[in-house]
Amino acid sequence: MKIDKNTKILIIGLGLIGGSYAKALTEKGFFAGGLDTDQKAIDYALENKIISVGTVSPTPEYIGLFDLIIFAVYPDAILGWICQNQRYLKKNAVITDVTGIKCSFIHKVQEILRADLEFIGAHPMAGRESSGIENSSSEIFKGANYVITPTEKNTQNAKELCRELGVLLGFSNISELSPEQHDEIIGFLSQLTHCIAVSLMTCRDMNGMSEYSGDSFRDLTRIAKINDTMWSELFLLNRDKLLCQMDMFKNSFDKLYDLILKGDRDGIRDIMKKSTLNRELFDKTKGNDLV
Amino acid sequence: MKIDKNTKILIIGLGLIGGSYAKALTEKGFFAGGLDTDQKAIDYALENKIISVGTVSPTPEYIGLFDLIIFAVYPDAILGWICQNQRYLKKNAVITDVTGIKCSFIHKVQEILRADLEFIGAHPMAGRESSGIENSSSEIFKGANYVITPTEKNTQNAKELCRELGVLLGFSNISELSPEQHDEIIGFLSQLTHCIAVSLMTCRDMNGMSEYSGDSFRDLTRIAKINDTMWSELFLLNRDKLLCQMDMFKNSFDKLYDLILKGDRDGIRDIMKKSTLNRELFDKTKGNDLV
Repeated sequence: MKIDKNTKILIIGLGLIGGSYAKALTEKGFFAGGLDTDQKAIDYALENKIISVGTVSPTPEYIGLFDLIIFAVYPDAILGWICQNQRYLKKNAVITDVTGIKCSFIHKVQEILRADLEFIGAHPMAGRESSGIENSSSEIFKGANYVITPTEKNTQNAKELCRELGVLLGFSNISELSPEQHDEIIGFLSQLTHCIAVSLMTCRDMNGMSEYSGDSFRDLTRIAKINDTMWSELFLLNRDKLLCQMDMFKNSFDKLYDLILKGDRDGIRDIMKKSTLNRELFDKTKGNDLV
Repeated sequence: MKIDKNTKILIIGLGLIGGSYAKALTEKGFFAGGLDTDQKAIDYALENKIISVGTVSPTPEYIGLFDLIIFAVYPDAILGWICQNQRYLKKNAVITDVTGIKCSFIHKVQEILRADLEFIGAHPMAGRESSGIENSSSEIFKGANYVITPTEKNTQNAKELCRELGVLLGFSNISELSPEQHDEIIGFLSQLTHCIAVSLMTCRDMNGMSEYSGDSFRDLTRIAKINDTMWSELFLLNRDKLLCQMDMFKNSFDKLYDLILKGDRDGIRDIMKKSTLNRELFDKTKGNDLV
């Protein structure tokens, strides 16, 4: 299967990311359908022509209409939906997702899946502080990373289809990681950063502080405005890997603490020089992405 | 003394912030002079009409020309310069600064200062990841906070002059803190954030990571590109207060770590809800500032 103008795409979960997928695909001329538990999200998506069809109570026929299914729901919801509804899915349909962790469900899903269907994981590294379809935008994928997480059960065909989808959505950089590598790296790049922002934002009384803050504090705490339902689930589904990343950060922070305590200026400067060098790796990528 | 078009202003140190002050003041029609140890910075500032006059080897007459002196140098340099040169300063001149910590020098400076001179501290909460006059811009003060740090030795007149200067430079919000309060709050809002960014950026091997990163990681580490000479000095001059802020953050981070370890989802969500509420305080201020 390749994606073409006849490919019918179902997006399950019309929140910020699902809505942004739907917008991007509809803008490119694809037939995008929606499925959500919230009638308001469906109504909003239909009124704003983000989807061509949508429902909160899908018939077997509706489910069987689509060639490509994209889960944009919390990770815990995927396995249950597939168990209940895979019998209605079109023959040879491909299923993918957008969730922030993979190991907790991907192997189970692939185990129980009908032989003609294929599930391949993907993670768009894009988001916003605000949730909901009304905040969705096809722009959020520009300059961003898209990570495909195939297992040994996935076909070359599905990997290519997933890459095509990433290109269509407008991502700048598409890469592959195993689900295990993905969860480890995301535990660092995404989950640890949220732990830090939340800890910083709650470590003392903040009254009056906004009068004295600069951009550094605002930048470090942008993501401290956090969807607690989603992120607490993501943290706990990736608990061991996240704790491991938190330990690494704690060690690094403690080392700097000790150098400051000892007044070891050279030691502090060495760490800062390494930090500056490391940060340049991200500048370059970001720069290239945006060109 | 009030600032008017006859006020001659000397900026000592033409780096990013000194250069940005000079640009902003020259654009407003003031006579701004420069002083730096680097001839290149003086040449650049003169060629680009950022200053009207400038030198690396000031004569007593040059120093005596100015009504308002602004130190935009590392904190360690201020006391020595004043000891050596205050005898040349114009009668009743007012001196201020831009440095990120105050207690380590401000009381000493005020003690040794000539009776007719006045030193009043100020901290522009603005900056960039890049240093040097070539990166300076009068735009960096827009929407930003400006904190005046008077002591009991400062006059109402000097406080008002400092406020006027903040308004002229384009700051959105001007407030007052004692040097002690300032250093405690800046230890939190500015120094701790830099400690966190540097620790995050150096806690593991970063090779290949940029392919998978999202905006959250980029935002949290923007300031990990750091001027190690300046920041190591700032950290050590504010050591006790900074360590105290680092302890507070560590406690908060450890608390979240324990909740994740225990799998206490409600506990994690409670902290995230508090975090979201606290972050809104900063959104509002930022929003109002920019209007």
